[in-house]
Amino acid sequence: MIEEIAKTAQKSALQLSRLDTEVKNQVLLKMATALEIHSESILKANQLDLKFAEKENIPGPLVARLALNENKVFGMAKGIRSVVALPDPIGQKQSAMEMDENLVVYRVSCPLGVIGAIFESRPDAVPQISSLCFKSGNAVILKGGAEAQNSNKVIVGILRDAIAEVEGAPPSAIQMIETRAEVAEMLNQEKYINLIVPRGSNAFVKYIQDNTRIPVLGHSEGVCHAYVDSSANPEKACRIVLDSKLQYPAACNALETLLIHENVAEQLLPVIIRGLKENNVELVGCEKTCKLSSEVMPADPVEWESEYNDLKLAIKIVSSLDEAIDHINTYGSGHTDTIITEDKESADRFMKEIDSASVMWNASTRFADGFRYGLGAEIGISTNKTHARGPVGLEGLVIYKYLLYGDGQAVKDYSGENSREFSHKPLS
Amino acid sequence: MIEEIAKTAQKSALQLSRLDTEVKNQVLLKMATALEIHSESILKANQLDLKFAEKENIPGPLVARLALNENKVFGMAKGIRSVVALPDPIGQKQSAMEMDENLVVYRVSCPLGVIGAIFESRPDAVPQISSLCFKSGNAVILKGGAEAQNSNKVIVGILRDAIAEVEGAPPSAIQMIETRAEVAEMLNQEKYINLIVPRGSNAFVKYIQDNTRIPVLGHSEGVCHAYVDSSANPEKACRIVLDSKLQYPAACNALETLLIHENVAEQLLPVIIRGLKENNVELVGCEKTCKLSSEVMPADPVEWESEYNDLKLAIKIVSSLDEAIDHINTYGSGHTDTIITEDKESADRFMKEIDSASVMWNASTRFADGFRYGLGAEIGISTNKTHARGPVGLEGLVIYKYLLYGDGQAVKDYSGENSREFSHKPLS
Repeated sequence: MIEEIAKTAQKSALQLSRLDTEVKNQVLLKMATALEIHSESILKANQLDLKFAEKENIPGPLVARLALNENKVFGMAKGIRSVVALPDPIGQKQSAMEMDENLVVYRVSCPLGVIGAIFESRPDAVPQISSLCFKSGNAVILKGGAEAQNSNKVIVGILRDAIAEVEGAPPSAIQMIETRAEVAEMLNQEKYINLIVPRGSNAFVKYIQDNTRIPVLGHSEGVCHAYVDSSANPEKACRIVLDSKLQYPAACNALETLLIHENVAEQLLPVIIRGLKENNVELVGCEKTCKLSSEVMPADPVEWESEYNDLKLAIKIVSSLDEAIDHINTYGSGHTDTIITEDKESADRFMKEIDSASVMWNASTRFADGFRYGLGAEIGISTNKTHARGPVGLEGLVIYKYLLYGDGQAVKDYSGENSREFSHKPLS
Repeated sequence: MIEEIAKTAQKSALQLSRLDTEVKNQVLLKMATALEIHSESILKANQLDLKFAEKENIPGPLVARLALNENKVFGMAKGIRSVVALPDPIGQKQSAMEMDENLVVYRVSCPLGVIGAIFESRPDAVPQISSLCFKSGNAVILKGGAEAQNSNKVIVGILRDAIAEVEGAPPSAIQMIETRAEVAEMLNQEKYINLIVPRGSNAFVKYIQDNTRIPVLGHSEGVCHAYVDSSANPEKACRIVLDSKLQYPAACNALETLLIHENVAEQLLPVIIRGLKENNVELVGCEKTCKLSSEVMPADPVEWESEYNDLKLAIKIVSSLDEAIDHINTYGSGHTDTIITEDKESADRFMKEIDSASVMWNASTRFADGFRYGLGAEIGISTNKTHARGPVGLEGLVIYKYLLYGDGQAVKDYSGENSREFSHKPLS
């Protein structure tokens, strides 16, 4: 059953890969208009989901994410139109090499094929992910949260109908599955599915990674650091630490560990701690930190590897930039780390030596985000070190192929003595 | 034990990532010179391996690959010097975006970290892989064939000594393991190892892929096709088909299935078949092909998915370009496929619609190779669709990180009403 869905997706992906930019954009605009036209039926379906949520006593924040109104539906349409405005990531020449006369090889971007997208309660994820996949020429198999099932189903139907209106465009480029058992089966379709994009808790992403041979684009942890250097500007240090921790503590790019140089700890920590405590942040710290402030409880060693995603912070006083870099590369998760300093040399070392997807100088860790980086769209944030790293835009849904244009050449003419030689002239 | 090796590799990788291009090249030149100076001790160790091979009745072709002489050792040194000549793939700015005044984010290439390289009997793989990893700032853990153990050990020792001569360069950037049990343990070190590069048989690569969570760069199959279109130039068709099959049949980019349009089959197939039979190629084919030639045995359905790596070819007569494309996308392995035609429209459709790492027009499939493509070096050939695809040069050992340069900015200033807006001005 799921194998059939995956096979269909692969076929649709091949069809989709043949569409020109104009045709893809035409479909996307039809999708946007259709969502606006059918907003009433989306909201009706959403009412069913909300009733179910009420019956099941689903927690408030989840219900808030689940609930749609006309504004939100129009926002979905607007989101799709912004995907139309993005440059087509497909068919871009990445390199060109003349191997010999009339023998030229190009590297050209192309779609991955089939994306499996697994996400939670927000129905707005459906048009967002679907439009990004469509624009990049990929078919998608969606699995949303059970609590949003009715909304998702109606939205998927609208999107597919919009595709069907354009000749040559395959409606099966968007398919949906519904049960956990189906997800488990989907994770086995490495023959047909090229990338899994999970959105959800760390435990959830880790579960996916541990149960599939398909490459997974996701981040399992965000243990982010701020290091306040001995040459830090106090005002910047306070602002960046507080923003990194407080602006949205549940985010993966929120601060979890503060490192501070011993030369400035006595002066700066009390101010920072006051700011944090005013915002009800629970604090744990190293021995030295505890000595400095009675507000800080002793940290268990496990704290240095902990992602709280909450109003809690671990603090450690370090005696050098080296110690800070070592600490971050040892206990961090390679997500996002920032240094606060006025010393360019320290900043340069930090930027070079920290092995994380985003490394910052005098800026809040919360900036690590596809929209803020100007990527135009964010598929997700990746702590992988292959394919795509950090905030991932459309380029994460793209790979390339080599296209070789010849004139009847054989390799034997380039082998052995007195053979032809390759010219290997890069073309612009 | 292996965990310790992997941890050491990770530490060395961090050290290595800090080295400037000049220092890396200085080390590589020392490696090359040291191999030349110590060629005698390499050849002595190689003698031990050859004696062992004789005792164990290791087959001739394997012994040929194992055997070194002074020329081959000097060839290793030359190979390392050609890696020196390659541009440093690290530290390259891939994009730059002004997010706001004094808030700029760059995407900059950086090493993956630790590479696990598993290969068979050629001792020349040791300096080749080691130098490519070193140049790209990656530590490597090598596992060579047991039959080359003595040669490999001496070569690794020489390379490490060369690293030790340069201050700040970590000799443990190159380590070697020796047993299969150690390989199995290495495949579990996903915490420390970032990429596995296996070189060997399909079954071997598949085994590796099935037994690790670490990303694997390799190709498990090369079922390559040539499609002779109805508008093919007969002379080019013969030349390309024969070269693709015969120039080196054991290679992964050698031809396994010939598709030919029915309009030209009667005219062209007999000529092609004669050329193949003169070179002792065993032929199987579809019903129509068998009718056309008594030299062709009926093909079992499994033949269409078979990689022979040998003097055997499957032939199918098709009635359209569409049928050819469908066949290749269904039964191929996404490695390398070529069309022979004088019709640009057919060629363009083939290039666009075939979902393979290398797609060619009027050229032998045997051209699909990093050296021939002018990549300067080949890490391997990949049939993956993420990270790196097709012939992979140094860029396959590289990822990127985002470096954000700020001036104390907080995200809260960009949120809510009357907030600052991002400028998102791409910089060149």
